[in-house]
Amino acid sequence: MKAEKFTLLRHFDGMPQPSDFQLESEDLPELKEGEFLCEAEFLSVDPYMRPYSKDLNPPVTMIGSQVARVLESRSDKFPVGCRVVGALGWRSRTVVSEDMPSAVFGLRKLPDLGDLPTSYALGSCGMPGNTAYFGFLEICKPKEGETVVVTGAAGAVGSLVGQIAKIKGCRVIGFAGTDDKCAWIRQLGFDVAINYKTCADIDAALKEAAPDGVDCYFDNVGGMLSFQIRKQMNLFGRISVCGFISSYNEKTGEELKLEIPEKLILFKQLKMEGFIVTRWDQEETWNRGVEQMASWIREGKIQVQETVTDGFQNMPQAFIGMLKGENTGKAVVKVNAQ
Amino acid sequence: MKAEKFTLLRHFDGMPQPSDFQLESEDLPELKEGEFLCEAEFLSVDPYMRPYSKDLNPPVTMIGSQVARVLESRSDKFPVGCRVVGALGWRSRTVVSEDMPSAVFGLRKLPDLGDLPTSYALGSCGMPGNTAYFGFLEICKPKEGETVVVTGAAGAVGSLVGQIAKIKGCRVIGFAGTDDKCAWIRQLGFDVAINYKTCADIDAALKEAAPDGVDCYFDNVGGMLSFQIRKQMNLFGRISVCGFISSYNEKTGEELKLEIPEKLILFKQLKMEGFIVTRWDQEETWNRGVEQMASWIREGKIQVQETVTDGFQNMPQAFIGMLKGENTGKAVVKVNAQ
Repeated sequence: MKAEKFTLLRHFDGMPQPSDFQLESEDLPELKEGEFLCEAEFLSVDPYMRPYSKDLNPPVTMIGSQVARVLESRSDKFPVGCRVVGALGWRSRTVVSEDMPSAVFGLRKLPDLGDLPTSYALGSCGMPGNTAYFGFLEICKPKEGETVVVTGAAGAVGSLVGQIAKIKGCRVIGFAGTDDKCAWIRQLGFDVAINYKTCADIDAALKEAAPDGVDCYFDNVGGMLSFQIRKQMNLFGRISVCGFISSYNEKTGEELKLEIPEKLILFKQLKMEGFIVTRWDQEETWNRGVEQMASWIREGKIQVQETVTDGFQNMPQAFIGMLKGENTGKAVVKVNAQ
Repeated sequence: MKAEKFTLLRHFDGMPQPSDFQLESEDLPELKEGEFLCEAEFLSVDPYMRPYSKDLNPPVTMIGSQVARVLESRSDKFPVGCRVVGALGWRSRTVVSEDMPSAVFGLRKLPDLGDLPTSYALGSCGMPGNTAYFGFLEICKPKEGETVVVTGAAGAVGSLVGQIAKIKGCRVIGFAGTDDKCAWIRQLGFDVAINYKTCADIDAALKEAAPDGVDCYFDNVGGMLSFQIRKQMNLFGRISVCGFISSYNEKTGEELKLEIPEKLILFKQLKMEGFIVTRWDQEETWNRGVEQMASWIREGKIQVQETVTDGFQNMPQAFIGMLKGENTGKAVVKVNAQ
């Protein structure tokens, strides 16, 4: 059985380039007892892959999760035809052992999403969904009537955070990078959407959008925009640090430097906490998040959008496009039936 | 009745200068019903005065707390001879109304410290003591066996934090600015003391002192040293941001800039929280802290040192000396009997 995979050839420097990847073909081995063969249906491209790649030792198969169907099996637990979601890397087909740990960066059976698309297991009903659900609710602990700011607001996570904040009765202000994205998040229910790329005066725009100050900030971007938002936070404000995509593609030696954060954190008595969603990875906790997100989607309280790129061979383009902000909502790659 | 006071003439720019203050004499008015006359015995000089002065409108009496004795009284609540601790400013004598709020930046009767010096009500058994007690325990939530770093470790607050951390069974590393201070905090029980001014390689020294990484960081100084310490924090580390004295005397336009904090905060899932001790200002909570500190001192578990400057007229020198790190332990000014 043949499989395709993308090898990361070298560490990225600045924005990733298509030439940093190489598409390779390989022969898969025969299945051993307890193994099964997965065929990718949807693959995820996510911002975390950029900073996490620093810990890889190229050349190496690029990391990432996928929704896959079991094509062949010598495992009772994962019979032919069942679906899984797992961190199998950028591979079209993969031989997997049933001993692979059950974890967000391991392997799980696809949750029962009913009539929702299976690709949602990579987005709103998977890692990004739980990132929004737990990362916002557990760290920001928003209260009804509070003002919430979300950056990367039209992304896979940010668009969900804003909608969860609306469900919780908050005033929600989103920052996104195009007018179309801003129009979309307004349609999702965000009270205000600000195009941070064209806004001439971020401070004034935020002041107008949040006249009572900002209580919760869900930070996907870091850097200068986050610095400006922190300045308008209220006493005892909470900041959930989910990402800093504005710095992911910095070239070495060109890192942004800003005034030290201690000043605002102290006098406004802010709590700033970083998290990685794996801290909620215990099966029961994890499933609770997935089920809540799926319920809200079915009830129409949360809308989901995907930016789908067709073809496994286009993984690098989808990844780079996502890092450039070309996606709206969750970016996934659909593998064409072979 | 005559009183002396220091007027702040202008906003500080950079390190405060004696010429920023003016010693003035004033005639106090007759007491009205409900008022009483306080005579300062000890006055406090604290780091917070430097940044807080930015919110003043000079010329104005300089802010600060003192332990005072009631000389005359038309208040049943505050009879002649009783002692108070209150935010009466840099004044030798003050007419006070019994309606002044009971608060850390208000007025309280001196707590019953038994045989401990009354000046401790400005330090270990007062605002700095509760800053250490609550600010460390409530925000860092240290666990036995964890590694704790304290900066400003020979100061009024830092020296207490380190000793509390030892009581809680932690390994404690202190940073201070002279060899004498380092020797003193070692004597207090700190496991390691590092002179940050003479240490050639802070990263290596901390690595050696904290081979298992840093779990809790009580930050009095901010800036570059804090940036370096954060780099060695463990997953789920907690940072209590109490001050950033390294930046208090920056000249406008010369603010230190450093790489954005989001990077470490995210991947190490750090919690960084700023606090002002007034959040624990409710009478019962406040007194619980004072009583615990006083108990530990009486039991010999916490040692206290004061740097005492004699003479009300030397308030500016004591304040500036404290900002330059000339004090060890709590800096107070003793008013000579008149």
